[in-house]
Amino acid sequence: MGSTITEKILASHCGKKVVEPGEFIEPKIDIALSNDVTAPLAVKEFRKTGIKKVFDKNKIALVMDHFTPNKDILSAEHVKFVREFAKEHKIKHYYEGGNVGVEHALLPEKGIVVPGDVVIGADSHTCTYGALGAFSTGGGSTDVAAAMATGKVWFKVPNSIKFILNGKLNKWVSGKDIILYIIGLIGVDGALYNSMEFAGHLCEKLTMADRFTITNMAIEAGGKNGIFTPDEITKNYVSKRAQRKYKFYTSDKDAKYLKIFEIDCSKILPQVSMPFLPSNTKAVKDIKKTYIDQVVIGSCTNGRIEDLRVAASIIKKGKKVNSNVRTLIIPATPEVYSQALDEGLLRIFIDAGAIISAPTCGPCLGGHMGILASREKCVSTTNRNFVGRMGHVESQLFLVNPAIAAASAIKGYIALPDEIYKAKAEKQKMNLN
Amino acid sequence: MGSTITEKILASHCGKKVVEPGEFIEPKIDIALSNDVTAPLAVKEFRKTGIKKVFDKNKIALVMDHFTPNKDILSAEHVKFVREFAKEHKIKHYYEGGNVGVEHALLPEKGIVVPGDVVIGADSHTCTYGALGAFSTGGGSTDVAAAMATGKVWFKVPNSIKFILNGKLNKWVSGKDIILYIIGLIGVDGALYNSMEFAGHLCEKLTMADRFTITNMAIEAGGKNGIFTPDEITKNYVSKRAQRKYKFYTSDKDAKYLKIFEIDCSKILPQVSMPFLPSNTKAVKDIKKTYIDQVVIGSCTNGRIEDLRVAASIIKKGKKVNSNVRTLIIPATPEVYSQALDEGLLRIFIDAGAIISAPTCGPCLGGHMGILASREKCVSTTNRNFVGRMGHVESQLFLVNPAIAAASAIKGYIALPDEIYKAKAEKQKMNLN
Repeated sequence: MGSTITEKILASHCGKKVVEPGEFIEPKIDIALSNDVTAPLAVKEFRKTGIKKVFDKNKIALVMDHFTPNKDILSAEHVKFVREFAKEHKIKHYYEGGNVGVEHALLPEKGIVVPGDVVIGADSHTCTYGALGAFSTGGGSTDVAAAMATGKVWFKVPNSIKFILNGKLNKWVSGKDIILYIIGLIGVDGALYNSMEFAGHLCEKLTMADRFTITNMAIEAGGKNGIFTPDEITKNYVSKRAQRKYKFYTSDKDAKYLKIFEIDCSKILPQVSMPFLPSNTKAVKDIKKTYIDQVVIGSCTNGRIEDLRVAASIIKKGKKVNSNVRTLIIPATPEVYSQALDEGLLRIFIDAGAIISAPTCGPCLGGHMGILASREKCVSTTNRNFVGRMGHVESQLFLVNPAIAAASAIKGYIALPDEIYKAKAEKQKMNLN
Repeated sequence: MGSTITEKILASHCGKKVVEPGEFIEPKIDIALSNDVTAPLAVKEFRKTGIKKVFDKNKIALVMDHFTPNKDILSAEHVKFVREFAKEHKIKHYYEGGNVGVEHALLPEKGIVVPGDVVIGADSHTCTYGALGAFSTGGGSTDVAAAMATGKVWFKVPNSIKFILNGKLNKWVSGKDIILYIIGLIGVDGALYNSMEFAGHLCEKLTMADRFTITNMAIEAGGKNGIFTPDEITKNYVSKRAQRKYKFYTSDKDAKYLKIFEIDCSKILPQVSMPFLPSNTKAVKDIKKTYIDQVVIGSCTNGRIEDLRVAASIIKKGKKVNSNVRTLIIPATPEVYSQALDEGLLRIFIDAGAIISAPTCGPCLGGHMGILASREKCVSTTNRNFVGRMGHVESQLFLVNPAIAAASAIKGYIALPDEIYKAKAEKQKMNLN
């Protein structure tokens, strides 16, 4: 019996030939990650161990991205506390201020996480790095505290579920729609404690940005991790970034899966997750007209340059965002911000009347920078739409891809980009007549 | 006996030939201003009057700039409350979302306030518009509520103090240093309830940006208002912006002043207001080396394009901001942001590792977007450095002009730009040897 990519990575980090689903293991970790929300607790717990030095100052990443630029005194104190710890222990990957990006966009971009890694992060969306062909999973602050002390993390090997993605993507359909569709299909506990392995011919055509978006939301189906088999596209992305050696793992042909889903992605239309669960998905075309108050384009899910490019292309067509819609553009990292500046995307957003924020998680978790009042509705490219996620418990959040978000910002209601292109074509036609 | 410019503007708005200092008047107002902090209370008080319609929907400005993009649920509820009022009353000058700029930069820029106006604002720095040759003063939310109901505001005509600015400005000295120097000279109550009138030959050479900075801080000396005599520079600024007719007033030669200060500005060196009062001023060169944690360049005091240009020119020389200093650049309005983008300033800031924020008052009042932890020190181009103004009561704030702020961001301590130019020159010299 063969092994899955997840099992192989875990076995290699345990010094074993194989590991079995259900087995308790304590793999060595390559990166232990924490942010300004979870690191303060992780640091406190680390200190309780009495251990004087972290296991490896080069294998810890502390990214102050959630409530920064510091929202209030409490968040400022938290960052200060972590900063002092980082200085004391000479933590290599400490990020704050102008260097900060949203952690799950920043770490791959900087080559801090690489294919074949085992990564534990005190943030549920740590599963993002699976797009690189790494095993990465979210844990608690105490898990990260233990990892910082010992270099290891304890957990059970997950079973794997394979999602075979075939077919061809429809217009305006992206990685976001694929993962929303899958979560809609299997539910928010559809992959509970399982590894979600993505395979199939379509994968060869998915950009790294799409892959990151897909693995990012594995946790929204309850997945322990999400993972892609690394390929040429991965290599192109990683080769110019990796700070360490990396290794590509692949699943054996006779690897064992708990379930296998074959998904004809040709059938997927642009998706929207209606309040209050990511699994509450519908095709955008099937929902009734829903007026909105705010649009957020950003986050670890969809704040990459590819996402901003798509959004800008649509906003450029529409020219101005709707005057009833506060449109927040949040490039996920300084590199993304810088590239968006170079490519003229910031110019498009500004001219359209959008707000450009410095990189931050901000509104995604109801942190700051665009919080919703009661009964306000927001279209967002983020990953969760739980009750009160972005503010008031009576606010509503609709999860979509950046194209739908951009079209909705222009129209003032949840809209398909076609509406803008159609309107423009009709206007041109009228002008000709 | 003649009248001052302030007395003339007030008299004209009372339908009188003259008004006397000490006289209680109820002038017609041209603009009643409020923001997301003060408007909710103003609206509540307005509703208590039982009056169904505001006196003039075109003469009210509501600018949601302090805690936006919405910091939290409370601020979101406040903005929503004001938005609904603005819609109900069809308020012309309602600003939120991508249209928001810091009110005192936004209103002159949009030509909403013009020379000869009487402006009341529920924000202490409403005195800014005096730079245009308008009478403008800060009041309470209830004053603005009354103004929204009646179109009038009740107060006592102030005495005037004349500040005759002569001499030539030293290198790196700007309007900010002039006003900090004056506040240092006369104290935070040195012009209590008086009109601060700026005159003298130097005025002819002060840009509108410098004048705005000077009148902006009149309140920091207790001034009821600050005012410049409008001239060609004013006209150039206003002619392309004014949304209404405007009138230039000038003081009579025999106008009466409570005091006259003649200030030889040639003697002013770059200033810093040490914690915890704006009047606690020193020449930057005379203070001991003070390491800092944060720099803020922005606000209604110094967030204009001229300010960003100066800052960028120095940051460009220094290349990278100090790794210990979180450097926040906050363009005061979308127009400033857009212009900074056009002129390549945003590129310089990003390349230097600074954070670029969307327009907001944010950290200036300890609102959000760069709040300080205990014992942190911040150099800021803002207007107040009271205890806890930008965060923790044990944090410290040093007020400076944008050039000093930029130099300090590079050096990591409160520094003069000369240090950077000197360092660069020395480096070049060494390379030649």
